[in-house]
Amino acid sequence: MGETIEFRIVRTQKPEEENVILGQSHFIKTVEDICEAVVGSVPGAKFGLAFCESSGDCLVRIEGNDEDLRALARDNALAIGAGHSFILFLRDCFPINVLNALKNIREVRTICCATANPAEVVIAETAQGRGIMGVIDGQKPRGVEGTDGVVWRTDLLRKFGYKRG
Amino acid sequence: MGETIEFRIVRTQKPEEENVILGQSHFIKTVEDICEAVVGSVPGAKFGLAFCESSGDCLVRIEGNDEDLRALARDNALAIGAGHSFILFLRDCFPINVLNALKNIREVRTICCATANPAEVVIAETAQGRGIMGVIDGQKPRGVEGTDGVVWRTDLLRKFGYKRG
Amino acid sequence: MGETIEFRIVRTQKPEEENVILGQSHFIKTVEDICEAVVGSVPGAKFGLAFCESSGDCLVRIEGNDEDLRALARDNALAIGAGHSFILFLRDCFPINVLNALKNIREVRTICCATANPAEVVIAETAQGRGIMGVIDGQKPRGVEGTDGVVWRTDLLRKFGYKRG
Amino acid sequence: MGETIEFRIVRTQKPEEENVILGQSHFIKTVEDICEAVVGSVPGAKFGLAFCESSGDCLVRIEGNDEDLRALARDNALAIGAGHSFILFLRDCFPINVLNALKNIREVRTICCATANPAEVVIAETAQGRGIMGVIDGQKPRGVEGTDGVVWRTDLLRKFGYKRG
Amino acid sequence: MGETIEFRIVRTQKPEEENVILGQSHFIKTVEDICEAVVGSVPGAKFGLAFCESSGDCLVRIEGNDEDLRALARDNALAIGAGHSFILFLRDCFPINVLNALKNIREVRTICCATANPAEVVIAETAQGRGIMGVIDGQKPRGVEGTDGVVWRTDLLRKFGYKRG
Amino acid sequence: MGETIEFRIVRTQKPEEENVILGQSHFIKTVEDICEAVVGSVPGAKFGLAFCESSGDCLVRIEGNDEDLRALARDNALAIGAGHSFILFLRDCFPINVLNALKNIREVRTICCATANPAEVVIAETAQGRGIMGVIDGQKPRGVEGTDGVVWRTDLLRKFGYKRG
Repeated sequence: MGETIEFRIVRTQKPEEENVILGQSHFIKTVEDICEAVVGSVPGAKFGLAFCESSGDCLVRIEGNDEDLRALARDNALAIGAGHSFILFLRDCFPINVLNALKNIREVRTICCATANPAEVVIAETAQGRGIMGVIDGQKPRGVEGTDGVVWRTDLLRKFGYKRG
Repeated sequence: MGETIEFRIVRTQKPEEENVILGQSHFIKTVEDICEAVVGSVPGAKFGLAFCESSGDCLVRIEGNDEDLRALARDNALAIGAGHSFILFLRDCFPINVLNALKNIREVRTICCATANPAEVVIAETAQGRGIMGVIDGQKPRGVEGTDGVVWRTDLLRKFGYKRG
Repeated sequence: MGETIEFRIVRTQKPEEENVILGQSHFIKTVEDICEAVVGSVPGAKFGLAFCESSGDCLVRIEGNDEDLRALARDNALAIGAGHSFILFLRDCFPINVLNALKNIREVRTICCATANPAEVVIAETAQGRGIMGVIDGQKPRGVEGTDGVVWRTDLLRKFGYKRG
Repeated sequence: MGETIEFRIVRTQKPEEENVILGQSHFIKTVEDICEAVVGSVPGAKFGLAFCESSGDCLVRIEGNDEDLRALARDNALAIGAGHSFILFLRDCFPINVLNALKNIREVRTICCATANPAEVVIAETAQGRGIMGVIDGQKPRGVEGTDGVVWRTDLLRKFGYKRG
Repeated sequence: MGETIEFRIVRTQKPEEENVILGQSHFIKTVEDICEAVVGSVPGAKFGLAFCESSGDCLVRIEGNDEDLRALARDNALAIGAGHSFILFLRDCFPINVLNALKNIREVRTICCATANPAEVVIAETAQGRGIMGVIDGQKPRGVEGTDGVVWRTDLLRKFGYKRG
Repeated sequence: MGETIEFRIVRTQKPEEENVILGQSHFIKTVEDICEAVVGSVPGAKFGLAFCESSGDCLVRIEGNDEDLRALARDNALAIGAGHSFILFLRDCFPINVLNALKNIREVRTICCATANPAEVVIAETAQGRGIMGVIDGQKPRGVEGTDGVVWRTDLLRKFGYKRG
């Protein structure tokens, strides 16, 4: 318990508007399973995935069907460097389209963030390795919605077809 | 990576015995979806919900069917102030009644706490915003259960009807 | 918000190769439910479980069908000491076999780690108690997989029968 | 394949407005599991459950927390008489409150009906036993909704709080 | 039990290659919930949905974002006419993309078919109404796959990206 | 609607005590997915699987890790012959261990039976093909459990470890 912990921030590096999902899983099988979850969820979705193997060769394992997104995933995974974490970049689909499929994968244990916002991953580092503590996802609230805010968000969801009535 | 992180504690402010669920989600659709999950789970449940929008207007979005619980949710969400977090106060129902429904909502990515205990939310704050690192939920263990402890807890669950046999 | 937080590392103590799942739940019912999830998932699985009750008597509640694994669970739960956390040691079965069953238990709110690696649990401690912030699970990545790495991991999964084709 | 099959109708016998769920499961463990699913879903729910054991003693297994609903379940289960079927009568809660919990029970394989309507269970009977083929649940459609019908149903769901916006 | 049952076949009427999902649900809320499940699953998916209300006005309730598919759904629902059944026609997405989302809707109790094949719905009709007994989905098997058949299907899944390795 | 339907019984052919799961799915991807679900659920489980492709070549597609169980699956699938049905024989594991994993596969739409009992599958046959209407699973009830029956079944579940307390 006297061990030194250093906390660091790793900002996700990504084009604005690109969606990213950061999570934790416990076995390299997750690489194929996440691919299959994305391809089975949304026809034509583009994605890049990287998983940090945390024993044996300790390699960043990479998959995906788009070179740019694969490279993004690789670079961000290396920067975060937390054992058993994965990072998934999506194009032509949204986190909302795939998140339940990811949560149902038997190796996946938690989702740390799913966002198009700038995100700062809080990392704890020790002599052994790195772990994800949490994520600062976008900005702090600047106020409380009033009646017009309620109208705006309910209208927006209906305009996109996400909600009816 | 040289960025300053400040860690803070935000205590949930609530009447004793009131149940609270704190989680993280990634889209304002979650506001309506959590309402529907609660109303569809327990007839007559009272609740207040607040969600911290983390881009655009960055407003705390509020819903619920009880004014006191809405106000509780609003005040606690503002105090926590973590982008993409939500907080849900419940009356006449328990976290156990709604938690699986919440976990199955497609925007919800994790549940940070579900408790009637005093809870301290550990927040990381940077120039960008705030993120939830974890929650100190109630007290540390004071010992290990003996045979009488086993009898007490198995009896309690059967008295409440949660378990049979 | 002026409260003191101390961060500590608690290493999981376990025989090499033994699998452990660390998670958070919100009610003592989880003790029986996790047992039932394991026994119902894998015939013959051995396990030991400990749950840190965080109110009332604040006892570490223990279950399982193997004395060694029960003792391991008890000792690690006491060392971690985070309210509403549980720790599960498995033998003759793998986290992949039980993790979805655990995630579907209505009291379980998140899984903090599922691993056979050495794991360091990052704890925040205040005057009130302790909370789990995250887990350092194994080691940092040492590189990026090349073509031979892809072949190795796809072959391995097929050799074990986890994947076909 | 030359075997004689006789098709029969068994009407569910129940007070008007009472909700019933008819399903199929494959192990007597389902009796306790369905009880726990109902009690864990809705505080104060009343229910009666019967399950048709289909081997060994072939007894109708009964549980519940309300004598009238237990008797209803028993009588309807005997009338239907299909091996591995269960029938659940609910009061002070609705099928919508418990159906996902039932579908997630590991022994449950399908739900044949969930309704407050008069229901006719179509049974196939052979020398061996009986099986549920399907259910005639309420009445045939008498037309297609127009604009006023859309308004009525969307308003109704919002009046009950099931839907927002 | 002396009641007359008549069995009929209703063929689904649809353009070749169009995908259809036929299921059973127990409440008009399912109309909005299925819409939301489809729109939330696949960006740009086109669909038409019809649900046979089985009490009160007994109207076929219709939703969707494509007039042709809404008309297809309406006509097929009227032809099937089974209380509490729904039928969903999809374009620019596949059953595989939405089926888990549908199964997780709290009103949905079973899925009777999901196919692009010609499908014959077997209906039981009594004086009270109609119920779905089962579906004849495509053709009978004409043989058993050999080694070349295994190669063909594993290649096909990999060509489409559904499977890796 | 004037089409001829013939109802037939197909008895599952299997060694006594062998467990079988019969279900319906809508795409050949289900063959690999069911394999992966079984292997990922129970270490060392033996199984044989057959799926009736219902368009194109209309072949019975076969997988598994045990020759006898593969042959059983093949022969029973051919005898049943219903398009888009699958049949799974299990050894060294039980339906209770894999059923939730099967229900969560995105192609699987329903489970028709999961049993070690003698089972009679009720088939509807037309000029087009065959569909499963239901299953007669074991025997009819012979009575209602008394107090001793309750004791027997609750004791049995606790003796097997399926239930605690």
